[in-house]
Amino acid sequence: MAQTFKERRSALAALGLDLTPDMVGGTIAIAAPDIDPAIYEGVKVVKDLAYGPHERNVLDVYKPADGGDGRPVLIYVHGGGFVRGAKDSDTTPYFRNIGAWAVQQGWVAVVINYRLAPEHAYPSGAQDVSAAVTWTVDRIAEHGGDPARIFLAGQSAGSMHVADYVVGHGGFGPHGRALAGAVIVSCIYDVGRASHKDLHTAYWGEDTSRWGEYATLRGLIDTDLPLMLAVSEYDEPEFQDHASQFVAEWFAQRGTYAPMHLLYGQNHLTPVYGVGSPWDELGPKLARFIDVNG
Amino acid sequence: MAQTFKERRSALAALGLDLTPDMVGGTIAIAAPDIDPAIYEGVKVVKDLAYGPHERNVLDVYKPADGGDGRPVLIYVHGGGFVRGAKDSDTTPYFRNIGAWAVQQGWVAVVINYRLAPEHAYPSGAQDVSAAVTWTVDRIAEHGGDPARIFLAGQSAGSMHVADYVVGHGGFGPHGRALAGAVIVSCIYDVGRASHKDLHTAYWGEDTSRWGEYATLRGLIDTDLPLMLAVSEYDEPEFQDHASQFVAEWFAQRGTYAPMHLLYGQNHLTPVYGVGSPWDELGPKLARFIDVNG
Repeated sequence: MAQTFKERRSALAALGLDLTPDMVGGTIAIAAPDIDPAIYEGVKVVKDLAYGPHERNVLDVYKPADGGDGRPVLIYVHGGGFVRGAKDSDTTPYFRNIGAWAVQQGWVAVVINYRLAPEHAYPSGAQDVSAAVTWTVDRIAEHGGDPARIFLAGQSAGSMHVADYVVGHGGFGPHGRALAGAVIVSCIYDVGRASHKDLHTAYWGEDTSRWGEYATLRGLIDTDLPLMLAVSEYDEPEFQDHASQFVAEWFAQRGTYAPMHLLYGQNHLTPVYGVGSPWDELGPKLARFIDVNG
Repeated sequence: MAQTFKERRSALAALGLDLTPDMVGGTIAIAAPDIDPAIYEGVKVVKDLAYGPHERNVLDVYKPADGGDGRPVLIYVHGGGFVRGAKDSDTTPYFRNIGAWAVQQGWVAVVINYRLAPEHAYPSGAQDVSAAVTWTVDRIAEHGGDPARIFLAGQSAGSMHVADYVVGHGGFGPHGRALAGAVIVSCIYDVGRASHKDLHTAYWGEDTSRWGEYATLRGLIDTDLPLMLAVSEYDEPEFQDHASQFVAEWFAQRGTYAPMHLLYGQNHLTPVYGVGSPWDELGPKLARFIDVNG
């Protein structure tokens, strides 16, 4: 670990907030070396299990090599602007880090791929999440997981698929909304207000007049499902905007402060790129959320 | 440490959110035993130094027993609904815990008393904070502190005195607003909207039509001083209301997510009652804030 918190935060700030290739690469260069190799010890990975008909309908299960059962289950849904991203990588630790770290917490993890835009538009992501939840309910006991304690987490576009699933945009599958809680990191909630950038039209479509129907803001505020939300200090302004609005509207309707965590010194990527490192801000909060609701 | 995080959170929730004597006593019974006695080791306390003419214008300095110099300085301003509270206690660890813990972080701490309502009304608290800051600038080097790195922190009524000082309601003294940062925990920012309960009229006066002038919301959003704010999951609704509003208005003006931390599983008191315990949520955030800005 080459840096202090202050140095790491300054290095991230210097990369800027825009998700350019240089910014993403720079963030990986900062975050990846600090992941503790010990998180992979004693972890067994079962790769590329199919949960649907498409080649992207595959998932990896992370579980203890020495067995165990009845563990809480974390399903992780990656980001990537709707058009890219994957459950794992040959060149980075992402997101084996989350699967392995989850096993160290005493859980089983399910890390999924899903169909991508523009070929597959709204609500394909949520439909795939729904199918993956259904697979998990049906099959996770074979891997040591407790199907009554499934937590669904996503970041960026992945968090929007999670949010859509929670509010029912993707349909719930045969088991209903089979979750104990949902974790939503850097999300656009009020889709009708979303910027019309290419990544957004690729998924939500060219007819922006329909985007208002795709908003998850009201549904999340109405839900009785335990939620944990987060936004980063160095998130892109659009995410900071939607998180701020969420806090205001949640209070207006529910009369409490929203379950919105500020991740200080983090950018859009580091909440998930830092899981399993000493800089992990998201993981400890996630662990307490699952402890409380699991 | 008798509890898990989940058990502690449930025990705090069961006490309710209203700051009744039973709730305060129950919170102390939960929080105080978990403070680590090791935080007091190697700490020297210089008690009851006068920083003004009133008997409440006294402060305690916490510093390393073995000397040192050039340390960041934390000034702590207690809460107590404007009408009660103290820098220390014969029956509880509060707030020796904050002074001693600060020394373990590598800082010097100044923990103050200030004049109380109803005898001393708005802006007496901020005036006393201003006088304490002035004292600290002038004298803290003698105790190993760096007068260029003073951080001012308060909770509840104490946070309102801090906020008033930051925006200038109490006057700045001969050194100006001599701070490197301010920490505001569970605050009412938009005083014109505050409830008209007795504790509030005791300090802000019976003429509630004037309270709007006492708001710190705009001034804090306008300031260039580094800020760290917090609100607790089990804060009284009025604090959750003002924190939510702060997040919305900060974004509207500054275009970023406010520096507002949610303290999960904490009530109005535990952010400060837990400092120095394994349950401390506030302390690690404060340490990073001071690391970044110190």
